Amino acid sequence: MQVYEAPLRDMKFVLHELHTDDGFGNLEALEEFTPDLVDAVLEEAAKVAQEVLLPLNRVGDIEGCTLENGVVRTPKGFREAYDLFREGGWCALASDPEWGGQGLPEQVNKMTEEMICSANLAFSLYPGLTHGGTTAMEGYASDELKQAYLPKMVSGEWSGTMCLTEPHCGTDLGMLRTKAVPQDDGSYKLSGAKIFISAGEHDLTENIVHLVLARLPDAPEGVKGISLFLVPKYLPKDDGTPGPANGVSVAAIEHKMGLKGSATCQLNFDESTGWLVGKPNKGMEAMFTMMNIERVSVGIQGLGVGEAAYQSAVWYAKERLQGRSLSGVKNPDGPADPIIVHPDVRRMLMTMRAYNEGCRAISGWVSRALDAQKHATDPEVKQRAEDFVALMTPVVKALFTDLGFESANLAVQCYGGHGYIAESGVEQYVRDARIAMIYEGTNGIQALDLVGRKLPAHTGRYLRAFFHPVAQFIEAHKEDEAAGPMIEALEKAFGALQLSTATIAQKGMADPEEAAAAATDYLRLTGLVAMGYCFARAALIAQARLAEGVEDAAFYKAKIATARFFFDRILPQATAAFLAIKSGKASIMSLEVEAF
Amino acid sequence: MQVYEAPLRDMKFVLHELHTDDGFGNLEALEEFTPDLVDAVLEEAAKVAQEVLLPLNRVGDIEGCTLENGVVRTPKGFREAYDLFREGGWCALASDPEWGGQGLPEQVNKMTEEMICSANLAFSLYPGLTHGGTTAMEGYASDELKQAYLPKMVSGEWSGTMCLTEPHCGTDLGMLRTKAVPQDDGSYKLSGAKIFISAGEHDLTENIVHLVLARLPDAPEGVKGISLFLVPKYLPKDDGTPGPANGVSVAAIEHKMGLKGSATCQLNFDESTGWLVGKPNKGMEAMFTMMNIERVSVGIQGLGVGEAAYQSAVWYAKERLQGRSLSGVKNPDGPADPIIVHPDVRRMLMTMRAYNEGCRAISGWVSRALDAQKHATDPEVKQRAEDFVALMTPVVKALFTDLGFESANLAVQCYGGHGYIAESGVEQYVRDARIAMIYEGTNGIQALDLVGRKLPAHTGRYLRAFFHPVAQFIEAHKEDEAAGPMIEALEKAFGALQLSTATIAQKGMADPEEAAAAATDYLRLTGLVAMGYCFARAALIAQARLAEGVEDAAFYKAKIATARFFFDRILPQATAAFLAIKSGKASIMSLEVEAF
Repeated sequence: MQVYEAPLRDMKFVLHELHTDDGFGNLEALEEFTPDLVDAVLEEAAKVAQEVLLPLNRVGDIEGCTLENGVVRTPKGFREAYDLFREGGWCALASDPEWGGQGLPEQVNKMTEEMICSANLAFSLYPGLTHGGTTAMEGYASDELKQAYLPKMVSGEWSGTMCLTEPHCGTDLGMLRTKAVPQDDGSYKLSGAKIFISAGEHDLTENIVHLVLARLPDAPEGVKGISLFLVPKYLPKDDGTPGPANGVSVAAIEHKMGLKGSATCQLNFDESTGWLVGKPNKGMEAMFTMMNIERVSVGIQGLGVGEAAYQSAVWYAKERLQGRSLSGVKNPDGPADPIIVHPDVRRMLMTMRAYNEGCRAISGWVSRALDAQKHATDPEVKQRAEDFVALMTPVVKALFTDLGFESANLAVQCYGGHGYIAESGVEQYVRDARIAMIYEGTNGIQALDLVGRKLPAHTGRYLRAFFHPVAQFIEAHKEDEAAGPMIEALEKAFGALQLSTATIAQKGMADPEEAAAAATDYLRLTGLVAMGYCFARAALIAQARLAEGVEDAAFYKAKIATARFFFDRILPQATAAFLAIKSGKASIMSLEVEAF
Repeated sequence: MQVYEAPLRDMKFVLHELHTDDGFGNLEALEEFTPDLVDAVLEEAAKVAQEVLLPLNRVGDIEGCTLENGVVRTPKGFREAYDLFREGGWCALASDPEWGGQGLPEQVNKMTEEMICSANLAFSLYPGLTHGGTTAMEGYASDELKQAYLPKMVSGEWSGTMCLTEPHCGTDLGMLRTKAVPQDDGSYKLSGAKIFISAGEHDLTENIVHLVLARLPDAPEGVKGISLFLVPKYLPKDDGTPGPANGVSVAAIEHKMGLKGSATCQLNFDESTGWLVGKPNKGMEAMFTMMNIERVSVGIQGLGVGEAAYQSAVWYAKERLQGRSLSGVKNPDGPADPIIVHPDVRRMLMTMRAYNEGCRAISGWVSRALDAQKHATDPEVKQRAEDFVALMTPVVKALFTDLGFESANLAVQCYGGHGYIAESGVEQYVRDARIAMIYEGTNGIQALDLVGRKLPAHTGRYLRAFFHPVAQFIEAHKEDEAAGPMIEALEKAFGALQLSTATIAQKGMADPEEAAAAATDYLRLTGLVAMGYCFARAALIAQARLAEGVEDAAFYKAKIATARFFFDRILPQATAAFLAIKSGKASIMSLEVEAF
């Protein structure tokens, strides 16, 4: 059964205890968002997620979206839910107040995103993509375009898309063919076919604003000849309301493994009117603004599904009676004990739990940096925040989605045969979560971004924004008996990461394939160290609180138990990753292509 | 795209070069099955798999099975394919000639099973379960039942099922409620509800023979009060043809994540006539005969899907043009290079390849033992073969299905966004493969079987059938320069396995939860060592062949490359498993149930 209660206690811990500073200091611009206000927002978001979105999650999977005569219909209830969502101001949460947004800290926004994704991943795509679009427009669109589109997009009245992929190119956007021909009035006529467009067409909003990558007639080849255009589904009339159709049609909706409540469309642009966003041939830059925001959000999707899967598995493990505890009967009045008594079931639950708490802690850290990058007044702090975000964006995207998918699968495993049946609701989590490892750049591409772009940038400066606090923390607590084995394990993994970094930097300089061959394992290793750092810090905070004699001791005790599990059972993966990195590219690349 | 060509070259290598003896010596009874004959059978099986079953794999997924007025229809084409399959004698391949079987070696049978599962996993269930049923009947049924049912089941004219699970009990069969009431004529009347019955009802055969676990009226509680019964769908008339219906009805077919071409039924038995198979209250023993056969076969299912996924991924990686090789343009006439040039894609392909070749090598080893257990004349050899099979059955089941599922997911990842779309065919492999980690005992249950039953049995005797050849091999090749780093890595992993075994034996004696907490990692570690042993041996054989100057040098070179990849990139998982085992149960069990 799909059950979900927003993990507010852990979220508050991350926001108010774990990531209050992170070396980014006080952010004056966000001072109005007091802990009480933040908590109130989170509690309201939890209600929306639990009461409005969760009940539609299975409906979305069963009904899916339909295309009839060019019209896409979302599953029953989605429209009403979207109206409620929009009217509640949830679309505008993190946007700039200049355009009607509420300007909430990213820390709060990301927690809210997590809840929405836990409750209904397919639904989350509709408002989610709009947010990426508005951010790109804030940075690159002309004032005229901003005035005409941003207020309606920020409020959620109109939704947005990102139109990148074409049938023959996804990762390699340099090959794209959609054309944009300049018109005398300063607009462009766009023609071409796009695929895999999330929320490309639907019945939730009265207009849809497509941000489309295309080529100008005189564009240079490859990625250097790509420009970004805004193409509305309906051209706005003078009064700003949607006017005539703009030649954007739906060729098909994709039949996907999951995420069926989200309309993934093949769109045809047939001399559609559009306007340039940013400079000619500089579309990739604007697109990456959007993309980087989406990448962190896709990571959160992985966490969201992982949390929902965990909770559904816990519910079942307490409910399902099967076998007896090896340490003596626990449920003498029943025909058997609940399966949560069995160590191997507990192992699976603890794994999911550690993944979720670990990812949430990293998410809190990265979104603290997102806030600092926007609001810090000290340029040094601002720079460091930017560096950290740049470094961690591919890690969040790939690590969280890998682990979220693993959690979904562990949930199915906890359910046994019942998990394979649609009625259980948990196999949906597997199918839904699977796409997050792929879209917005496959996880392999994230790893290449990390080793190929982020590591070498400014001679390793990005990395220092991460290594420095970790090294400092280890140094500060080395002699700390309470932290003992955790710090030791963290230090070892951090050492492996430093050594791997040096190896990749050195070998990769002479042969970029060496860096590429190490990429996926390196990303995982980085993620594990980040998680280890967060867990060690969290455990120390918890120990201190317990020593003080807090009221909700159970929460802090559980935090320590989960941290310990992480160090005992998850962090050992770091050794395997390190050994794989060390082995180099030879065994990956030596088999001739013909031999496959 | 789903492409598949049976990996005959590797199969022949495993059969004729890698596992010709394995310490089980010559099996005279199988001498008639010369390498030429075996190869001819494999080649014919390949044709059936590729030409008859593969084209129906997507059809099965799209159409699924339907239930209307109590009648289950399999997808279009399944009936014709089954007729061809049966008429070709494929149902009878491994069965005893006494009942019309062809008595082929299990080594050949398992390779054939792999091909069928690669081509069409859903289809494989129909003949597959019958074989488990006939083997149980050969061992436990009365002569009368054997005469009446075995010839028709062996030929495939009638099919079989295993009716174990009930809504409230799967793993814990002690709780089952289906009742069997003795009748004056020696038969029984069975009543109860069973779920998850593969091939429980379908339109492929004129009769279905259910093997049903049920309780006699005076049965003791728990697993000690379970008996096995044969319950036909239609009661045979005096002439042996199907007569009146026997009160077995289909309540529903399950809506599953995948494997949609296989009819998974909820069956109701309503005073259905049945006959006891084996002794009263000894049903678990007969059931485990069936179950153990099925467990190895389910492992093969994992391998089968893994191989199909690999081949489909290779096809795409050679076809899909995206980006340029980091070591210089490889496809100068095209707009981009095929993605197989990219190290991270290559890493995924090599991983799948190593999993498949490694599992196939283990499969060849275990089926050689299956043959020896049946046909060896030396009682010592027979015993050792039985021990090895007992030990490796849970390893094959869990390891192969875990890795098969991982391969299916890697295939999707190679396809990127296209892999998430149904048309690509690869997401089906993920959905189909998922169940194999669950049915016939979840992989967690396999791990418990390994550490709880197989390790302690006869003070570790089963284990010796595995440890002894590995230790001997390492000893023999320690000084061998050609084997160098491989043997070193194998020795290290084997050392970790020996140490883990001692730890589990010691700790588990005092506290069975300690053994249970280590189980899943221990099974993985065992599997990795078995795979490492097979790869090291295969690489040495390949080196020798190359030194001799064989014709198909490419095959042997590729074998060495894959082995090297295994040692560099897969075997390091052993260290992580070892560390997790070492950490004990504390971090798994310390969180209070209420804290979840």
